[in-house]
Amino acid sequence: MNEITPKGPFDGLLVIDLTHVLNGPFGTQILCDLGSRVIKVEQPGHGDDTRTYGPYVNDQSLYYSFVNRGKESVVLNLKEDKDRAIFINMLKQADVLAENFRPGTMEKLGFSWECLQQINPRLIYASSSGFGHTGPMKDSPAYDTIIQAMSGIMMETGFPDGPPVRVGTSLSDLCAGVYMFCGIASALYGREKNGRGAHVDIAMFDSTLSFLEHGLMAYIATGKSPDRIGNRHPYMAPFDVFNTQDKPVTICCGNDNLFNSLCRALNLTEAMADPRYASNVLRVQNQASLKAEIENVLKTQTAKFWVDRIHQAGVPVAPLLSVSEAMELPQTQARNMLVEAGGIRMPGNPIKISGYPDPHIRPGAATLDQQGEQLRLEFN
Amino acid sequence: MNEITPKGPFDGLLVIDLTHVLNGPFGTQILCDLGSRVIKVEQPGHGDDTRTYGPYVNDQSLYYSFVNRGKESVVLNLKEDKDRAIFINMLKQADVLAENFRPGTMEKLGFSWECLQQINPRLIYASSSGFGHTGPMKDSPAYDTIIQAMSGIMMETGFPDGPPVRVGTSLSDLCAGVYMFCGIASALYGREKNGRGAHVDIAMFDSTLSFLEHGLMAYIATGKSPDRIGNRHPYMAPFDVFNTQDKPVTICCGNDNLFNSLCRALNLTEAMADPRYASNVLRVQNQASLKAEIENVLKTQTAKFWVDRIHQAGVPVAPLLSVSEAMELPQTQARNMLVEAGGIRMPGNPIKISGYPDPHIRPGAATLDQQGEQLRLEFN
Repeated sequence: MNEITPKGPFDGLLVIDLTHVLNGPFGTQILCDLGSRVIKVEQPGHGDDTRTYGPYVNDQSLYYSFVNRGKESVVLNLKEDKDRAIFINMLKQADVLAENFRPGTMEKLGFSWECLQQINPRLIYASSSGFGHTGPMKDSPAYDTIIQAMSGIMMETGFPDGPPVRVGTSLSDLCAGVYMFCGIASALYGREKNGRGAHVDIAMFDSTLSFLEHGLMAYIATGKSPDRIGNRHPYMAPFDVFNTQDKPVTICCGNDNLFNSLCRALNLTEAMADPRYASNVLRVQNQASLKAEIENVLKTQTAKFWVDRIHQAGVPVAPLLSVSEAMELPQTQARNMLVEAGGIRMPGNPIKISGYPDPHIRPGAATLDQQGEQLRLEFN
Repeated sequence: MNEITPKGPFDGLLVIDLTHVLNGPFGTQILCDLGSRVIKVEQPGHGDDTRTYGPYVNDQSLYYSFVNRGKESVVLNLKEDKDRAIFINMLKQADVLAENFRPGTMEKLGFSWECLQQINPRLIYASSSGFGHTGPMKDSPAYDTIIQAMSGIMMETGFPDGPPVRVGTSLSDLCAGVYMFCGIASALYGREKNGRGAHVDIAMFDSTLSFLEHGLMAYIATGKSPDRIGNRHPYMAPFDVFNTQDKPVTICCGNDNLFNSLCRALNLTEAMADPRYASNVLRVQNQASLKAEIENVLKTQTAKFWVDRIHQAGVPVAPLLSVSEAMELPQTQARNMLVEAGGIRMPGNPIKISGYPDPHIRPGAATLDQQGEQLRLEFN
């Protein structure tokens, strides 16, 4: 080994990236952030659809840039012989091929898993799709909202007297992207031991099911789906979001001591002695009346006042922050979670590993076919 | 290599697991599902707090079982010399040590990263905490709800005229758990190249920030946080949840052709010709009136009727399913996403990798100290 610091644990690996839009690119972005060389192969025309999505900064689509920074771009028409030959040369040298087409697309292009193994038996071939490459729904169309709708997570989110709520971010796309990375990293480790490639088959649907948590526990325990419970904790109280004079705050009392500390901080001496609130189980049963008593006090002062006071009492408390307030926290900067890539601010890499750099300034996203000429030569 | 099929890509690895509650155990569960031997070291008394949490099935806490199945359990008091010696012997042979204590706890126990490297220079030491091991907020208490509140994700979730909504699952715990696994798998791969251990430092806060998506794009583009937008898509319409005669459905029209197909399926010929809906940009601007026109039609029939009809028209559509409906889909079974461990049904492993088994029947969670006697002998 030479003594140049590796860019990350996957430095030296070559990833051929056919992914598009959000789910697949989010997964290969992690490989790129952790040191891999990632070559994004885009279709002729406008390339990845997200290049046409706003919002734009410096004429660059933020949507595209957020999940493709640091990747090289080449346009190849996989239906034409000349470009296919270049693509096959890439695959022969590649460690990973990633795609998030509908199942069957790679077969139609002549790149089934069997065919890919013949081209390169050490290749890790990673697919991410709505419902996966097996099962009766594998061909169903899948947007993030469809998967959120069908997984149960929307029915779990929201208030008991309100409608189901979509998670305000494309959770199913994003968690499938992270799981795709998990599968690739695992298969790469396995290859160190057995020398063989593997097919990683990730579904947005499976990924979201794996996140259901207490809703799924309730189903297993009772055979029924739980009701939506808004912002409160299913098994602890007071553990919820509360209104103050201005903005909402969250207060999290996991045990009797914290409840008593909260009551003292709010001068709620009667509630502290009230038999309806004498244990956590009773407080969960009577959480509605307890919440009303707490909010009656909180409404007399601002969120800032109460966060300071309740924090001093040793009770876990926090303001509800907007995205801009969250991004402007000194902690966000200290953790390098807002980096600069190609002159645009964007989220940093949450996977911090000692011994590898976590640069604040990073290469940006490529323009369409930016490295095309060199890449066509390199893999000719 | 012998010819016994490995249990997974991490077969043969030894993971010492000090994690507790949800975030850390969710990460080490993936290592276990992918073949590692995971020894859960629990504190004297009742062990992991979640052993005392309901709901219970067959006298086992579902909360504990969901994220600790297949792990061995031993009780060790890390403040007593005899147990410390066993623990240190474990670390000498281990590949991974994982914990999700508050930062500083491992130092207080005498197991700082420097100390761990002396015990075993090849050890991957993974920490997951609320705000990470660096930065001004590293010592702040962190429950999932506090991180959701401070990351901006609650302010992004919900309707414009309603309050912010907590994601109906412990998203910050879970995504940090998956990222912890990502960091461990990456560091293990890096160790194959450089022979050295590493410290993986994951924060629930960083992890949630990495999932903000369009809310963060809006902030970067405009300097302001976006308004909550309920269940609709920020840049496409009609792409939302709609009420029918009985249950809600989601309909996702990403382009003009799909919009026209939808109008034909709903006999909305006037809307199809309406200049307010002539392009996607215009439909987003006028989504409220368009939604009202669509719901007027949908309210005449059931969700099942409309899902069939709109699906036949080639437009992406889905019913909103409860957790029980989602888990009972044939697709869920076909993908083995509801496995049986220790006689209890629980979520399967979404990371499907060819060449490794994905068993439907798996070992369950251990009782407290179930393997204690053998383990104390093995690492004496």
